[in-house]
Amino acid sequence: MGRRLADVSAPARLAAPGEGIGRDELALAARNHGLPLEAMRHDLTPPGLHYVLTHYDIPHVPDGTPWQLTLGGRVRRPLRLDPAALRDFPQVTTRVTMECAGNGRALLTPRPVSQPWLVEAVGTAEWTGAPLRLLLAEAGVAPDAVDVVFTGADHGVERGVEQDYRRALPLRVAAGGDPEVLVAYAMNGGPLPPQHGHPLRLVVPGWYGMAHVKWLREITVAAEPFTGFQQAVAYRLRSRPGDEGEPVTRIVPRALLVPPGFPDFMTRRRVLRPGPVELEGRAWSGQAPVVRVEVSTDAGRTWREAEAAADDGHRWAWRRWRHRWTARPGEHVLSARATDAAGHRQPLEQPWNRGGFANNLVQRVPVLCLDDDENGHEGDGHDENGHEGDGHEGNGGAGDGVGRA
Amino acid sequence: MGRRLADVSAPARLAAPGEGIGRDELALAARNHGLPLEAMRHDLTPPGLHYVLTHYDIPHVPDGTPWQLTLGGRVRRPLRLDPAALRDFPQVTTRVTMECAGNGRALLTPRPVSQPWLVEAVGTAEWTGAPLRLLLAEAGVAPDAVDVVFTGADHGVERGVEQDYRRALPLRVAAGGDPEVLVAYAMNGGPLPPQHGHPLRLVVPGWYGMAHVKWLREITVAAEPFTGFQQAVAYRLRSRPGDEGEPVTRIVPRALLVPPGFPDFMTRRRVLRPGPVELEGRAWSGQAPVVRVEVSTDAGRTWREAEAAADDGHRWAWRRWRHRWTARPGEHVLSARATDAAGHRQPLEQPWNRGGFANNLVQRVPVLCLDDDENGHEGDGHDENGHEGDGHEGNGGAGDGVGRA
Repeated sequence: MGRRLADVSAPARLAAPGEGIGRDELALAARNHGLPLEAMRHDLTPPGLHYVLTHYDIPHVPDGTPWQLTLGGRVRRPLRLDPAALRDFPQVTTRVTMECAGNGRALLTPRPVSQPWLVEAVGTAEWTGAPLRLLLAEAGVAPDAVDVVFTGADHGVERGVEQDYRRALPLRVAAGGDPEVLVAYAMNGGPLPPQHGHPLRLVVPGWYGMAHVKWLREITVAAEPFTGFQQAVAYRLRSRPGDEGEPVTRIVPRALLVPPGFPDFMTRRRVLRPGPVELEGRAWSGQAPVVRVEVSTDAGRTWREAEAAADDGHRWAWRRWRHRWTARPGEHVLSARATDAAGHRQPLEQPWNRGGFANNLVQRVPVLCLDDDENGHEGDGHDENGHEGDGHEGNGGAGDGVGRA
Repeated sequence: MGRRLADVSAPARLAAPGEGIGRDELALAARNHGLPLEAMRHDLTPPGLHYVLTHYDIPHVPDGTPWQLTLGGRVRRPLRLDPAALRDFPQVTTRVTMECAGNGRALLTPRPVSQPWLVEAVGTAEWTGAPLRLLLAEAGVAPDAVDVVFTGADHGVERGVEQDYRRALPLRVAAGGDPEVLVAYAMNGGPLPPQHGHPLRLVVPGWYGMAHVKWLREITVAAEPFTGFQQAVAYRLRSRPGDEGEPVTRIVPRALLVPPGFPDFMTRRRVLRPGPVELEGRAWSGQAPVVRVEVSTDAGRTWREAEAAADDGHRWAWRRWRHRWTARPGEHVLSARATDAAGHRQPLEQPWNRGGFANNLVQRVPVLCLDDDENGHEGDGHDENGHEGDGHEGNGGAGDGVGRA
């Protein structure tokens, strides 16, 4: 019997009711990773904490490896550019909040079987590169062009189809200035890390992560709409398997809380002590600026306006928000809800599609506020040195940014 | 009814037969992360790809936050040191392969319910700091001292016990020179990233990750053996719940392959084409240098000697190995097996304990070698530009380190 590519792939499917996360989903979760939500305290996500999703292996491109980006297809003057040549174009730096299109998938019912994100597939970085519109202008786009196709060096199989990762943007987006698409060669002022596309990647501010093609080696201007796997099969909003579906494009609004208090290791439940707590978090939308964040501390029954940080000029990055709350003993469910200037508002019921894409259901953070007199702190009897408190009196714990000195 | 810490914790347990990964395990997998195995090609793990496990939240310590490390307890001259003062001690840099004690846990039968690592919880970095033995000498350890206790700023609950993360080393290890324990303030030449212990952490070469206390703020020399949670309850090798158990200490030998070929996105199955393949990987042991690596390409029935790289003087870091193989069409299971100079050799049957610790079962990498004529590559019809091949002819694919220019 022949050995075929189809033998390694499985059809897309939904998990059965109550079905736990499978070995395949776990293997994805072990290599890709989300942003630990407490790290949303940083305006710019520290190296290594930004979410990462790679469909296949991370290409191995040691420093000094020659690399050329070609720009061809329906253009008058095909270009071949190495990373140094890209620096001859005007250099643009943009702060971008990037989110995986599948963020929230593992919380859906039924659960589409794929990378099992909870809500952490997000991160913010400053990307520096050459504006794609200037590269396209230099090459001279033919009048019949409709799509611009981007090919990465990452190679694998999906649903029986062997492929280099490849996605397209409509020409009007690729050549447009709002957002200004970048061919990026730096992240937070340094070279791209291997997992973020070293040496070159596309950055499409406001769009979900699948558009930001990593390890970029080829740009092709096409006179026909692109129908490759990642465009026509994957990353579509479908309610039934046979539907053509709508393409996944820009990020819909989402707000997330930095979970307050401290966690239980295994259950991940959050614990607080009674008293004032400053709730905080971030909110973003790729469609229009976030204009409003509301907070609920009673499982969504009532909502109050949070205080959003002043506009800092970073149109494509998340916005900080805060809300003062007084925690009383008992169980509480905390939520935040973003609305953008175009009137898009996060839903309270799950937006469901077969891929689990663009799902911005409001986050729920259950917390337990202890009784005033509860003190379960480890009495370990070795502390002859008299250290100055274990941070369990307040609600900031180790996460409050206050040094122990 | 009172709200107690015990309400947020659950007892330690084993998964039922066939039980999928639960929401709690997934939440751990989404925030902690392993090393994508293809990144073992790098001698030093690139930033952000080194494995990370944090029990609780990552403490938020913005640059410029005052930080003091105290060294007290059974000493003649208690010390208070800020990170700058540590640089007045001799500066030592050590290349260390670090592995989580729970690596491999999710592959065990039955599966202990905790952070569900497959085999990726490893990474190699160069850590720079002050030798702990010199700090202890400066403080003057009392003659009755037996343990040295290390306290981090990370705070949470485990099994109903609220605690700062705290672990001890026997005095002879803490004050010894083999390995030389470091209070580290730099990783790969730069400041520690937040998730790796910024601003200070312990580094104990050759020991599993639980010993390398992050966000280190207190060192206490004690005259009694330390009986805190992470020493006496967690990180013990137990076959039954009530056992006292043996402490988890040094890393047992393990070899891992860089999985050859390319993956299917969802199943993670590896695909190859017929022909020569250079298998490669890394091997390490915290007990003694790795002296032998064997490779099997027939599911462990036969073994051949791999070619191990020459000793590079980095005693505490992994060793590279290679093995030439000719892939023929069909299904194969690849394995590698390490033996160290003390005669420890990886087992072919799972070493099982209730915590899933120090489990170095030989890795199994199933691969499918296609028939010669199989070509399922996406024909996407847009490639007027004539790019130079999609890397699907060989077995290196995008991971072979060869540029596309």
